[in-house]
Amino acid sequence: MGKAHSNAYSKVNMFFDADAHVVRKAICGRDASGVSQAAKKLGWEHTETDWRKLASRGDVDVVDINAPSYLHKEMAIFAANEGKHIFCEKPLAFSTADAREIIDAANKNGVKHQIAFNFRFAPAVRVIRAMIESGRLGEIYHFRGHYLQDFIISPDFPKVWRLDKTVAGSGSLGDLGAHVIDLARYLVGDVKSVIGISKTFIKERPLPEGMTGLSGVASKDAPREAVDVDDATSFIGEFENGALLQIEATRFAAGNRNNLSFEINGSLGSVRFGIERICELEYYDAACDAGLQGFSTITVTEDIHPYAGHWWPAGHAYGYEHTLVHEIYEFVQSVANNNPTSPNFVDGMKCTQIMEAVDLSIERRAWVDVNSL
Amino acid sequence: MGKAHSNAYSKVNMFFDADAHVVRKAICGRDASGVSQAAKKLGWEHTETDWRKLASRGDVDVVDINAPSYLHKEMAIFAANEGKHIFCEKPLAFSTADAREIIDAANKNGVKHQIAFNFRFAPAVRVIRAMIESGRLGEIYHFRGHYLQDFIISPDFPKVWRLDKTVAGSGSLGDLGAHVIDLARYLVGDVKSVIGISKTFIKERPLPEGMTGLSGVASKDAPREAVDVDDATSFIGEFENGALLQIEATRFAAGNRNNLSFEINGSLGSVRFGIERICELEYYDAACDAGLQGFSTITVTEDIHPYAGHWWPAGHAYGYEHTLVHEIYEFVQSVANNNPTSPNFVDGMKCTQIMEAVDLSIERRAWVDVNSL
Amino acid sequence: MGKAHSNAYSKVNMFFDADAHVVRKAICGRDASGVSQAAKKLGWEHTETDWRKLASRGDVDVVDINAPSYLHKEMAIFAANEGKHIFCEKPLAFSTADAREIIDAANKNGVKHQIAFNFRFAPAVRVIRAMIESGRLGEIYHFRGHYLQDFIISPDFPKVWRLDKTVAGSGSLGDLGAHVIDLARYLVGDVKSVIGISKTFIKERPLPEGMTGLSGVASKDAPREAVDVDDATSFIGEFENGALLQIEATRFAAGNRNNLSFEINGSLGSVRFGIERICELEYYDAACDAGLQGFSTITVTEDIHPYAGHWWPAGHAYGYEHTLVHEIYEFVQSVANNNPTSPNFVDGMKCTQIMEAVDLSIERRAWVDVNSL
Amino acid sequence: MGKAHSNAYSKVNMFFDADAHVVRKAICGRDASGVSQAAKKLGWEHTETDWRKLASRGDVDVVDINAPSYLHKEMAIFAANEGKHIFCEKPLAFSTADAREIIDAANKNGVKHQIAFNFRFAPAVRVIRAMIESGRLGEIYHFRGHYLQDFIISPDFPKVWRLDKTVAGSGSLGDLGAHVIDLARYLVGDVKSVIGISKTFIKERPLPEGMTGLSGVASKDAPREAVDVDDATSFIGEFENGALLQIEATRFAAGNRNNLSFEINGSLGSVRFGIERICELEYYDAACDAGLQGFSTITVTEDIHPYAGHWWPAGHAYGYEHTLVHEIYEFVQSVANNNPTSPNFVDGMKCTQIMEAVDLSIERRAWVDVNSL
Repeated sequence: MGKAHSNAYSKVNMFFDADAHVVRKAICGRDASGVSQAAKKLGWEHTETDWRKLASRGDVDVVDINAPSYLHKEMAIFAANEGKHIFCEKPLAFSTADAREIIDAANKNGVKHQIAFNFRFAPAVRVIRAMIESGRLGEIYHFRGHYLQDFIISPDFPKVWRLDKTVAGSGSLGDLGAHVIDLARYLVGDVKSVIGISKTFIKERPLPEGMTGLSGVASKDAPREAVDVDDATSFIGEFENGALLQIEATRFAAGNRNNLSFEINGSLGSVRFGIERICELEYYDAACDAGLQGFSTITVTEDIHPYAGHWWPAGHAYGYEHTLVHEIYEFVQSVANNNPTSPNFVDGMKCTQIMEAVDLSIERRAWVDVNSL
Repeated sequence: MGKAHSNAYSKVNMFFDADAHVVRKAICGRDASGVSQAAKKLGWEHTETDWRKLASRGDVDVVDINAPSYLHKEMAIFAANEGKHIFCEKPLAFSTADAREIIDAANKNGVKHQIAFNFRFAPAVRVIRAMIESGRLGEIYHFRGHYLQDFIISPDFPKVWRLDKTVAGSGSLGDLGAHVIDLARYLVGDVKSVIGISKTFIKERPLPEGMTGLSGVASKDAPREAVDVDDATSFIGEFENGALLQIEATRFAAGNRNNLSFEINGSLGSVRFGIERICELEYYDAACDAGLQGFSTITVTEDIHPYAGHWWPAGHAYGYEHTLVHEIYEFVQSVANNNPTSPNFVDGMKCTQIMEAVDLSIERRAWVDVNSL
Repeated sequence: MGKAHSNAYSKVNMFFDADAHVVRKAICGRDASGVSQAAKKLGWEHTETDWRKLASRGDVDVVDINAPSYLHKEMAIFAANEGKHIFCEKPLAFSTADAREIIDAANKNGVKHQIAFNFRFAPAVRVIRAMIESGRLGEIYHFRGHYLQDFIISPDFPKVWRLDKTVAGSGSLGDLGAHVIDLARYLVGDVKSVIGISKTFIKERPLPEGMTGLSGVASKDAPREAVDVDDATSFIGEFENGALLQIEATRFAAGNRNNLSFEINGSLGSVRFGIERICELEYYDAACDAGLQGFSTITVTEDIHPYAGHWWPAGHAYGYEHTLVHEIYEFVQSVANNNPTSPNFVDGMKCTQIMEAVDLSIERRAWVDVNSL
Repeated sequence: MGKAHSNAYSKVNMFFDADAHVVRKAICGRDASGVSQAAKKLGWEHTETDWRKLASRGDVDVVDINAPSYLHKEMAIFAANEGKHIFCEKPLAFSTADAREIIDAANKNGVKHQIAFNFRFAPAVRVIRAMIESGRLGEIYHFRGHYLQDFIISPDFPKVWRLDKTVAGSGSLGDLGAHVIDLARYLVGDVKSVIGISKTFIKERPLPEGMTGLSGVASKDAPREAVDVDDATSFIGEFENGALLQIEATRFAAGNRNNLSFEINGSLGSVRFGIERICELEYYDAACDAGLQGFSTITVTEDIHPYAGHWWPAGHAYGYEHTLVHEIYEFVQSVANNNPTSPNFVDGMKCTQIMEAVDLSIERRAWVDVNSL
């Protein structure tokens, strides 16, 4: 993710007319030589090996938290107390209570805070949001979404940090489900109650010797350790506004490399979106002439589409990283102009709250009201 | 459905080498002139207006039950007692207990019985079943399916019999969900436990003056009556073999005319199927060469595919009604050769059992073990 | 094709309110026992082994010509002289001159004549035709279509009759291209001039011992014979109305089982259609709101769509053979009510004329005006 | 395109381990204030307003030619004579003769030269090339491709420079067709002969007052001027290796924003690719098990795929501009290591040669041998 964030900071001023000039001032890593190489490659002026020192630098206005999840809370509170504006990777925290502590620290210090729910910034998602707000889809009846991956499906895939509860906090639900939950909230509204089920299909995995990308290398005779996070989580629920919710997150859907998709059905129309075809949006308009109704595939790459005009001519694809550029551009604008950020840590907290409710519903085998947490 | 069944009986011998010659002997309807017209149009030799008389005719070996759902039980037991083999539309019955009574009557009388879960007979579904049985997909982790329609989405759509619990027994779950449930059972296995949620989005509807196809006509000032069936039902659960289950049935998914779709993920591959593209099957084979893996779209129309070779050359589409021809052909073969039928009333009962469990889970807001019913 | 035609005659009265009752009176085949079996299976009352006798029967009003192409001319003229209305498989004839002779015979005898360009009767094609006629697509700029198959791609596929010029008249152009040409004419208009190129990729093939479906069986040591028809033909041209034309027909497009597809672009919109997804139509409407424009996938299965309401509820697929039922229904109506037929032998002749122009353009390596033939 | 090129230079070292460090030394524009703003935004150190001065700078090793097409020749020869390595936008030149002059100048001065056929650097295109080279597709029979756009379809779209022959050299053929032609050559081989047809559907257009992106603004009463380039060009032909070629380029295909697509059919398999879904590749492998054959959709985003591993995890989309990053990375490597470049100006010349042959074939209404030019 360091690469994706660095790239985003380098693009903001090249592709947008931002009201502040972004300087990649300093990057932090545990290993001096490693971080030095990274700084050179990714275009950062200085390096630090102690994140507290970075967050205390006088020449830094904004801190971007991009460390393993279990460090988010400590880092965010420290940065807030140093008076830095904060851009934080998801999840904000491992519990609703922790999230509330972070928000308190940020509020107390009056710093801007934003959470990296970057898929909100896919142009197609913005178009959907505008459709729903303007009433184009009518009353919303259904949100059904899933995030399907398959990269750990082999029983020999090692127990990397993402499969370690202490470090990652959660498995498929926190890593993948969080994105779907945030999109559901962003587009349809707050969630009232949920009940879920989860599975850890592969109970033990070999310990890796090192990481490569999302994966790792484990020798043939590597000792095996119990996996303590969920391989898959599925849940149903209800929104505050009465719409039904169905969400599934899994790392065991063979052939689905990165299939975050959802469909929303309303009384006047429906939309479908999938992140693998990020430039496309499917839209059914019940108001079309009888006999000519159907889902249309909109290539969301025109000047008229949010953000798209800043890139290439119509029909020229953008990619995954562009969503992060858009989000960081908006964050920069909020900081520069002292405007509210969105999504902010409250959105991060509400997502955590829903995930906590799902976890609790699984533990208790009972429905859980989100607001009870 | 009378048209679809009549068509199927007329096709069995034309397209298959069945071991019995099917004669459309007699058709029954409440109205003498209506049934007479139907008989002429649909090719039946005789007519009856009393279904008991039809089921007692000496020149009839097989009774096809195609009446509103609430009549299935009485008709099936009567026909069984008359020693007739029975082909019954779904649902078999409104309760597991009723279904067991029917099965008992059939067994006592030694008659063949088959239930119209015709989507099992889509060539693509047969291919999937063979794949799973032969281990091509490996261990199964996920079944996620839905049946989405939108034909009653307008609040002015009248309260036709399908929206009347006394006649239809159930709403989206019984009408649509039943098909998905049966496919889940057929392909993945028996279901252990479920929990669901349902909604009736439009609480009152105008009373119709008459039916036209699936719809009806209601005058502007027609009195409105409460709808007592579900508009949408969503549930999650677990199979006996440990796989996860996610199913949704709704009549409020704008733009989805008849979208019965499912995806099954296994350790070695995945499949996707949707009834609107009935001739296609998507298959992901994890054993393909690295870098060349992906879901392939198989046009299930070749001689090598189940049933397909009886119709047209490769790539020439067949349609919905063909599934019923296939099923009735198999039923005719079972009757002619005194072989077991499949799916039979036990499959009908097991589907009802799952639906009952879902209903109970909604009522109690708690997980329900299917086998407890 | 005998099966497809028989099926169509058996369906006309079951699914449509035709103004005549169709009786499958007699079927003709060379072999008495074979034709007797066929009659039983396909539901014909009588058999003949001499086609002239069949075409002279007093109890026959309509003759359906479904024999190898080289016999069409002789049969059609004979039937016309016997005063029978004629439904003829494509191609009408091997040359424009032959086609004109047939038309003359039909006109002289005042019989109805129709040619089996059944894809005109796909509901989606009818919708497109209506769109163009009503001006929905505006001025037409482009027709690009192809018919891609792959069933003879193996060099060991035998030289069946379809690869024999004397019997089949033509290869990919006549068998496949003819359908695309007819659709181009039906939808966009008459063709002014063409130039093409063709290839016979596999020059020699083993002689088969017998036919099975479209294929045949050749022993390993079967003698090989030169193939004298085209494996693939591609051509470009111009319509009388100034639109551009691009058509390709090939039996060497691996993976394309039966891919007849076309796209039409007009000043106000575009359409795309492919026969493998016969129930679908893609439509781009330039009049949609800015930012929400895209090709929509219309499921052409609603009551409002031509023919579709006679079959199943919305979203329930029909197949290839339904196009022939629709065409034969229209033919029956024309005969019953003494109305003009469409497409008739003049359409058959005009298609042959274009194919002849393409062949000539290949031979001469020069543009050919269609009307010069 | 300046934005796309600048972006590419800024990314090479961030995402690849290039053997040279790219410095964006100087950018040239006609207007001092405009170019100064551009330099700041796009990250260039210095500015020039005279391209000759830029191309003569001692601190510049590589010149990137990104000016209107009519200037390419003069600039490229000048830069070559200054001993600069050259990266040139397509088209290299307006005629084969001009292209040859440029190549001579480059060769004489021993400079590296590369042409911006960036779609060659889409990972999917590299995969296809490797498939064909390794024999996976067998003998190639067909290349059918098109590049469809619709941005000038309105008769009120002004006559911008792209519609002016003096500046742009060509219309749809040179702008769009060139990309398809280059891909055809890259993947299948050199072209032997062609014949085409072209149209200018809108004969006159209003003169614009200024440009905005690809479009322009014309007042309601703007004078109209004749359009002297082609709106659409279609041609057929033959490769040296005997495969058939069919290509169409048009700006009048409503709904097609940027539809560059092609299909290649070989004796052992087929591939399909379209630039709007740049991360996907469809592949049909005739060697798959019988009954399970079909086009598979490969998401070309894995580590194993060319270039893809330098970006994001599997299933995370990249976009249009990435192809240019890949190409410029390769160019940098060639310059740094004194290796051959590809595609170079000879490829640019061969593309021009084919376009010239197409133009000539249209003028003469006769087949043209490409090598005769």
